[in-house]
Amino acid sequence: MPDFLTLLDTETLAEAGLSEFSFGYRDRVRFYELDALNHVNNVVFLRWFETIRVAYFQDYGFSKYGPEDPMLVVRRVTVDFLAPAFQDDEYVVATRTKVIKPSSFIMEYAVASNGAIWATGDAVVVSVDRNGKTRRDHREEAMETAVTRDGAVREGFA
Amino acid sequence: MPDFLTLLDTETLAEAGLSEFSFGYRDRVRFYELDALNHVNNVVFLRWFETIRVAYFQDYGFSKYGPEDPMLVVRRVTVDFLAPAFQDDEYVVATRTKVIKPSSFIMEYAVASNGAIWATGDAVVVSVDRNGKTRRDHREEAMETAVTRDGAVREGFA
Amino acid sequence: MPDFLTLLDTETLAEAGLSEFSFGYRDRVRFYELDALNHVNNVVFLRWFETIRVAYFQDYGFSKYGPEDPMLVVRRVTVDFLAPAFQDDEYVVATRTKVIKPSSFIMEYAVASNGAIWATGDAVVVSVDRNGKTRRDHREEAMETAVTRDGAVREGFA
Amino acid sequence: MPDFLTLLDTETLAEAGLSEFSFGYRDRVRFYELDALNHVNNVVFLRWFETIRVAYFQDYGFSKYGPEDPMLVVRRVTVDFLAPAFQDDEYVVATRTKVIKPSSFIMEYAVASNGAIWATGDAVVVSVDRNGKTRRDHREEAMETAVTRDGAVREGFA
Repeated sequence: MPDFLTLLDTETLAEAGLSEFSFGYRDRVRFYELDALNHVNNVVFLRWFETIRVAYFQDYGFSKYGPEDPMLVVRRVTVDFLAPAFQDDEYVVATRTKVIKPSSFIMEYAVASNGAIWATGDAVVVSVDRNGKTRRDHREEAMETAVTRDGAVREGFA
Repeated sequence: MPDFLTLLDTETLAEAGLSEFSFGYRDRVRFYELDALNHVNNVVFLRWFETIRVAYFQDYGFSKYGPEDPMLVVRRVTVDFLAPAFQDDEYVVATRTKVIKPSSFIMEYAVASNGAIWATGDAVVVSVDRNGKTRRDHREEAMETAVTRDGAVREGFA
Repeated sequence: MPDFLTLLDTETLAEAGLSEFSFGYRDRVRFYELDALNHVNNVVFLRWFETIRVAYFQDYGFSKYGPEDPMLVVRRVTVDFLAPAFQDDEYVVATRTKVIKPSSFIMEYAVASNGAIWATGDAVVVSVDRNGKTRRDHREEAMETAVTRDGAVREGFA
Repeated sequence: MPDFLTLLDTETLAEAGLSEFSFGYRDRVRFYELDALNHVNNVVFLRWFETIRVAYFQDYGFSKYGPEDPMLVVRRVTVDFLAPAFQDDEYVVATRTKVIKPSSFIMEYAVASNGAIWATGDAVVVSVDRNGKTRRDHREEAMETAVTRDGAVREGFA
């Protein structure tokens, strides 16, 4: 019985075709995610990436989304749509940090279902203060976690 | 460990404060469901009611959402918003048919979290042909299920 | 040539079949408002009501949506869905205050297109402080405007 | 007085900072487009690109979105988010075809407000049959329009 929204272990992620990832969960397509062509609208994949990004930042310790936390803002996103998704389909969505810089990330995303990849994505995310402008350095512990769990590569450090 | 989107038994629903319901599941608030006031936007509750309605109609046998199935169209909806909901909150959403007529429903909805009711709703839903106009009678078996599982009252039958 | 999102005069609203209203504007159905049945999803009508409600509160002076302003929170909403809407359809949405109380509203909504009413709605909206709990009285001038422009009836005043 | 959703001439687009585009219109940020950080959510920019893409395909004659028309499916999208957008902000969104191939497009998008660019994007869109798989060649007239109006470059023709 699928346990939706619960973090999957790396073995389960690998079985889903997402062996490079260590952070992911299952979810199910809902009616409101379909468009007039009767499949999941392409914009919805970015919603899924956003949802897992928020969970990831909390879990890894980059932000608790409180008033003292940095704002983590998407600067660039690319998505490749590889296969259509339909009502009630179950899928696994996963993310990881590929490159970690002092106050930014290059992240990867993927969605898989029954061994097929539905979509992949990349995003550049920056860490800023509540003013939305000044860069805020990542917490060291969170970066350690990204390196250890995701195999993230450090770049731009003195 | 919560098992999201999996149907709950009546005992679990009762513990959640939803003892009149026999069809419900757990889910979790996502970032895209918040609005600028930082709580779940009131329109989102109607999305949750829609999502469970689709699951309900499939599960009870009213429609499989295929090309031969009736269209089940909302004619009227009322929602009472009783308490605010926030990021990552877990909730149970439930629905039932209160009154079943030959080609329509009066349905009830509720969302509860930690024993508090966040919102309740009522909807009038009609069953029509693919043309969107001609009424289509419910399947007898599905009506039986609504009567048995939900305690739905039959009205308007000769 | 339609002038979308620009406030219409009462004559134009009356021509659109919305003679009880004095606050409304034109807009057009977009692709993302359709669902898998290829018509505007019923939840979208509540989005339209929300959009015009925000414009109305600003225009009448109930709130400028700044940090010092009251929060105007929907407590109850009812919508009747009367006719389907399709891609690129143009419509007029309108709202008014029917009853004004010291710190709440009973509002009416309607959407019309080519003389046909697509949907009507009612909402109870309350004015609260930023804490989301304490009631905040309306500004006297804004209430005057609701009485004068909308024919709102005052209730619950000493 | 802004005339929302009405096509702008190239002079007006150039004044908006979008001189490479010949297809664009004005619109205004709505409350439901904001997220919990109180600015327009980044996913919403893709909604805007979708909305103008549908208008563009109809206007240029690539598809009337009828049952006989090709499906125009996004295969890849990249967006750069350059500046935040807020409630009630007015903006111009524009699109063009940069490269036209027999059954696909490379398109460009941009959103500007008060002379500042909020976001730019690229998309690869393919034309397929209703089965969602077989490629369908563009109509010659529509391609002509893309070449003439947008300066689209033809590629991949024998």
